Amino acid sequence: MKFEVTILGSSSATPVFNRNPSAQLLNCNEKYYLIDCGEGTQLQFTKYNLKAARIDCIFISHLHGDHYFGLIGLLSSLHLNGRIKPMQIFGPKPLLEILEIQFKYSDTNLRYSIEFFPIEADESRQIFENQDLIVKTIILNHRIPTTGFIFQQKQRQRKIIKDKAVSIPMAYYTALKRGIDVELPSGEILKSNDYTTPADPPRSYAYCSDTMYDERYFPIIKGCDTLYHEATFMHELLDRANETHHTTALQAGEVAKINGVKRLIIGHFSSRYKTLQMLLEETQSVFEQTELAVEGRTYQL
Amino acid sequence: MKFEVTILGSSSATPVFNRNPSAQLLNCNEKYYLIDCGEGTQLQFTKYNLKAARIDCIFISHLHGDHYFGLIGLLSSLHLNGRIKPMQIFGPKPLLEILEIQFKYSDTNLRYSIEFFPIEADESRQIFENQDLIVKTIILNHRIPTTGFIFQQKQRQRKIIKDKAVSIPMAYYTALKRGIDVELPSGEILKSNDYTTPADPPRSYAYCSDTMYDERYFPIIKGCDTLYHEATFMHELLDRANETHHTTALQAGEVAKINGVKRLIIGHFSSRYKTLQMLLEETQSVFEQTELAVEGRTYQL
Repeated sequence: MKFEVTILGSSSATPVFNRNPSAQLLNCNEKYYLIDCGEGTQLQFTKYNLKAARIDCIFISHLHGDHYFGLIGLLSSLHLNGRIKPMQIFGPKPLLEILEIQFKYSDTNLRYSIEFFPIEADESRQIFENQDLIVKTIILNHRIPTTGFIFQQKQRQRKIIKDKAVSIPMAYYTALKRGIDVELPSGEILKSNDYTTPADPPRSYAYCSDTMYDERYFPIIKGCDTLYHEATFMHELLDRANETHHTTALQAGEVAKINGVKRLIIGHFSSRYKTLQMLLEETQSVFEQTELAVEGRTYQL
Repeated sequence: MKFEVTILGSSSATPVFNRNPSAQLLNCNEKYYLIDCGEGTQLQFTKYNLKAARIDCIFISHLHGDHYFGLIGLLSSLHLNGRIKPMQIFGPKPLLEILEIQFKYSDTNLRYSIEFFPIEADESRQIFENQDLIVKTIILNHRIPTTGFIFQQKQRQRKIIKDKAVSIPMAYYTALKRGIDVELPSGEILKSNDYTTPADPPRSYAYCSDTMYDERYFPIIKGCDTLYHEATFMHELLDRANETHHTTALQAGEVAKINGVKRLIIGHFSSRYKTLQMLLEETQSVFEQTELAVEGRTYQL
């Protein structure tokens, strides 16, 4: 099952040439989830030959512009391009008001419906579930109400061993994949263990958009497979990070290490950094399995 | 005196790879006026190495997203980059409400003040004047209240002939430039005509963002030096143009011809056109002095 994320933006606050504000596209089993939507996100879809029309759900972490100013344009273009399937949007409550006022004054009656789910930033809770995935909020510590998101794959069914199962009717596959042994009309028993292998263990991806270092959000990201964490500044600017409620590259590494995550992706880089290698090296000095969020790059989760 | 416009976006409704939504930067005597501000405009400034910080006035023609979705991001970045000088914004009245709600929920207290001038789309009127320029609205015919803008240079003073005037005190220049003859203490008369040449004739630039063909706006653009006019569709899509209150390339040429403008720039091209040559040729079949609005290109007015 596909579980991958494509980075569409890695810049903080103000965009930089070649670095757009925050946006990521998560593909879980060919269902597409957009995570944050900074200005220009729809142009990034075009640039990287991705299809915005395939997005089903959008998660907005908070109402600083570099995380959502591209949403109204994306939604408008989907409308103009003929979308009719509903769009689910999860975000801070005022987001709907902000969208509606702009649709109102442009006299736009969307062809598709927006199903809006306001997020409370008071405690972590489950906000979404389908057959593949559970999504929970992560309460972050930023200047305004902000939540990250953790995307947890559900336990998958066992996998059919095709070579062995080719001789038996497909009608029995469902039971076998669930681990149930099947008795044929002849009395023969088909053992699930003989025809299937265990499912891949479910994986998890945590997205911590904008936050200062704060142990209160550690429990929910503990042990996750891949953690995306902001690393706005080098640690020499710790005071600035604290003042603006952001994290340093060093601290991002500490968050990953303390919480025993398997891999870390850092992003949300301050526009003052023209190159990013030193941020990467600072994080890796604490947590080696770190990668930079590079725009247009897809990370297998 | 500099009087030039740089195209930052030439696309209609939905952006296309390499064509951004509407935005233009007018430079009149080193004062910068932004005309419309589609999504991604601030990125265009970076791309073309222009300084958004130098903008003093912003004119928004109407509240369709492709003409203003980039404004909130631009204003936010100017704030984050330390702007303190006021910004004058001219646009439909609800624009201020749209901006304020977004500043409110991002808890942004701008370091600079916004001086907002609501535009009424009922009749053409003068909305701005300084020592160089007068700006008037053009009442367009679109689906929602929409105004274009005409930027008219003021009559300039006569120009000093430096080689001749080098022998006389500069204190007399002001009078001579105004066409006034000066009597020296010696009784000698300095004739303005001897020391100055006539000023360049004032030029004008009309911006017609989104409109269907409508003779009611012809009087104000009549005889202007450069007309920017939308040309969203080829004339074979006239029905679609009428339905969406847009102009065809052929009609744009007719507007220019009928009104005796000196030059026409067409833009706001539908995303269906991958190349633009046929739009240009259609317009030129009626009005030869036509150019395409090309992003990043500066047009001397």
